[in-house]
Amino acid sequence: MTYNFSDKVANLAPSAIREIFKSMSVPGMISLAAGNPAAETFPVAELARLSAEIFSTEAVAALQYSITEGYPPLREAVGERIRQKFGIGCAESRGDRFTDQTIIVSGGQQGIELAVKVLCNEGDAVICENPTFIGGLNAIRSLGAVPVGVPLLGDGIDTDKLEKSIKQNPRARMIYLIPTFHNPTGITTSLEKRIKIYEIAKKYGIIIFEDNPYGELRFSGAEVPTIKALDTEGLVIYCSSFSKILSAGMRVGYVTAPKEIVQKMVVAKQSEDVHTNIFFQMLCHRFMTECDLDAHIEKIRGIYRRKCALMIEGLERHLTAPVEFTRPEGGLFVWCTLPEGADMLGFVRHALEKKVAVVPGTTFNCNADAPSGSFRLNYSTPTDEQIIEGTRRLGETAMEFLE
Amino acid sequence: MTYNFSDKVANLAPSAIREIFKSMSVPGMISLAAGNPAAETFPVAELARLSAEIFSTEAVAALQYSITEGYPPLREAVGERIRQKFGIGCAESRGDRFTDQTIIVSGGQQGIELAVKVLCNEGDAVICENPTFIGGLNAIRSLGAVPVGVPLLGDGIDTDKLEKSIKQNPRARMIYLIPTFHNPTGITTSLEKRIKIYEIAKKYGIIIFEDNPYGELRFSGAEVPTIKALDTEGLVIYCSSFSKILSAGMRVGYVTAPKEIVQKMVVAKQSEDVHTNIFFQMLCHRFMTECDLDAHIEKIRGIYRRKCALMIEGLERHLTAPVEFTRPEGGLFVWCTLPEGADMLGFVRHALEKKVAVVPGTTFNCNADAPSGSFRLNYSTPTDEQIIEGTRRLGETAMEFLE
Repeated sequence: MTYNFSDKVANLAPSAIREIFKSMSVPGMISLAAGNPAAETFPVAELARLSAEIFSTEAVAALQYSITEGYPPLREAVGERIRQKFGIGCAESRGDRFTDQTIIVSGGQQGIELAVKVLCNEGDAVICENPTFIGGLNAIRSLGAVPVGVPLLGDGIDTDKLEKSIKQNPRARMIYLIPTFHNPTGITTSLEKRIKIYEIAKKYGIIIFEDNPYGELRFSGAEVPTIKALDTEGLVIYCSSFSKILSAGMRVGYVTAPKEIVQKMVVAKQSEDVHTNIFFQMLCHRFMTECDLDAHIEKIRGIYRRKCALMIEGLERHLTAPVEFTRPEGGLFVWCTLPEGADMLGFVRHALEKKVAVVPGTTFNCNADAPSGSFRLNYSTPTDEQIIEGTRRLGETAMEFLE
Repeated sequence: MTYNFSDKVANLAPSAIREIFKSMSVPGMISLAAGNPAAETFPVAELARLSAEIFSTEAVAALQYSITEGYPPLREAVGERIRQKFGIGCAESRGDRFTDQTIIVSGGQQGIELAVKVLCNEGDAVICENPTFIGGLNAIRSLGAVPVGVPLLGDGIDTDKLEKSIKQNPRARMIYLIPTFHNPTGITTSLEKRIKIYEIAKKYGIIIFEDNPYGELRFSGAEVPTIKALDTEGLVIYCSSFSKILSAGMRVGYVTAPKEIVQKMVVAKQSEDVHTNIFFQMLCHRFMTECDLDAHIEKIRGIYRRKCALMIEGLERHLTAPVEFTRPEGGLFVWCTLPEGADMLGFVRHALEKKVAVVPGTTFNCNADAPSGSFRLNYSTPTDEQIIEGTRRLGETAMEFLE
């Protein structure tokens, strides 16, 4: 039997990261390729205690069907938190020009996919930083929309080329951005550029999707306002999640956006999974209200501050010029760039032989066939010892391969 | 700001059932409109105990990212169960012509949506029983595919019209069916018709999606083999879930289909929610292996046997001819049909005034503008007292409205 698949899915490849994740079991392999939060960041004891409480006080509601929008107390707690922390959330009742609402989604991934689904017909374009998050790219492609890459510079997307790209792509429906601790590069877009990006979006009436899964994970430098905090016109869809601060495996995230957009996302989500696991929505809410989330996040920041410093130290020691790498102020990733003309895929294969896995930069390209001289490193998943030994092996790889 | 939404979502209405669910809080309202499993079917004590065990023995794995295909021990346990119970699952290694695989999905709803996503381009058709499950219809519509209705008779879809419909719709990519305890009608397709349907699908090389969320809930009559059990060519996608036997709110379901199809669904699911809540996948697996799932299901069947009998008894007493209703052998629903020419929507509104909510049959029509003389009743969600009083109020409605 030969199966005919839809155009949008026929050419969709499994995520290289997920594939690497699956083959990480090779003995002795050190993976710097994942993007998993560190296991020690899960507040296991508190979650166990709160789970037992839910079972003993509201088990039926926690196991029964619920509403698509999400558990109302969680929506409220999330809305309140991002208002206080990030200045996010407009309300006509407070004199704003539009009203934001929050929908709970099954991880930030679903937020991206739903946004593409409600905004894009097959063949429409989504403008992205290049490189960008593979999950974002695949969400766009899986609905038959087309990612269009605009180069990412050290302080954010190239805004001249962004404007040019909007002009050249009349079917561009959305700009997909990860302005803070960008995946895969670790770059944070400057406030100046955020303002410029918002002005461009306003000029052309195009929606910005601000993906902010790592926003709470700053371990050095000064906070930069979110683009959503600049939103006076109702142009920004803001998405974040609990994956990097409580548990990735529970799949609980949220989107805050103008209510017209959220209401369409609710209808689309209803057709996708009816609602997000309600037990874990309640668990998130209880953690936010009964535990000290800020203190917990402070602890996570400390862990990643140490792990990132360890990685940078290892890279500075072993992976000397001409290899360049970013020095992130938060998030989970470091981006390494080989000297002009070097064979990046050959380098990555050589590293695999030395039993250290990294993600080739081509994975994150909007144009899957375009070359890349870079690769992504992660410091949240490996142990401290693995970071030290892994960077040493990378240095060895560079010495042998770049000679 | 005026937002431009995608064509597929612009005209998608929120599910009437979900809307009713939200407005069920009117004081004194008896809802026979839901589709929720009875609260007493949730094995709360066991799930609480097993959850505590997971937290104490494998918390990190239960909170961390996992693989898109689903928790391997759960996939295996599900595969084994449906092989033993329903004769489902082919393997080339056992001499079959193709190999089935199982993917865990975030509720049966995601199974439907993923199947449409991997098989249909925008504008392709999916042939459905008419009436059919609103969640199925909206999954089809939300991807820009078009549901095409074929009348459902007392023993299953009209197979002559099914064949005609396939011939008339060259873009038909899938037949969506709920052969056992159909939602909304409660009808079970006869074995003879299942064979006939499979032969037609084989003749035209078209995929069947067999949605079987209620298959375990038979409380009278004899088991009928699934269509998937007849699948010799790799034409059937089989979908079921734990929603009606363990917990609906956890959103755990599964799809068993030829591996080529499952592998595409894995890639599409990766872009939707990465994977299903892993903690609850582990919980399902533990329940299946450490508790007596069959005994638990037997208990649920007993509850629904009693509740269904109570509803039929009430309808027979109060809702006498010329109103007709189905007598299901399992599942959650009874389908009532008013006499020719009666104003069904007027009847439903009159019932609401008498504080009994039912779902108008138009909700389940493939063609949203087509009329319906029927409405759906549910007996799993209301209490016994509500079933008795609700059917009495329906009888009163009929007396007053059909005069």
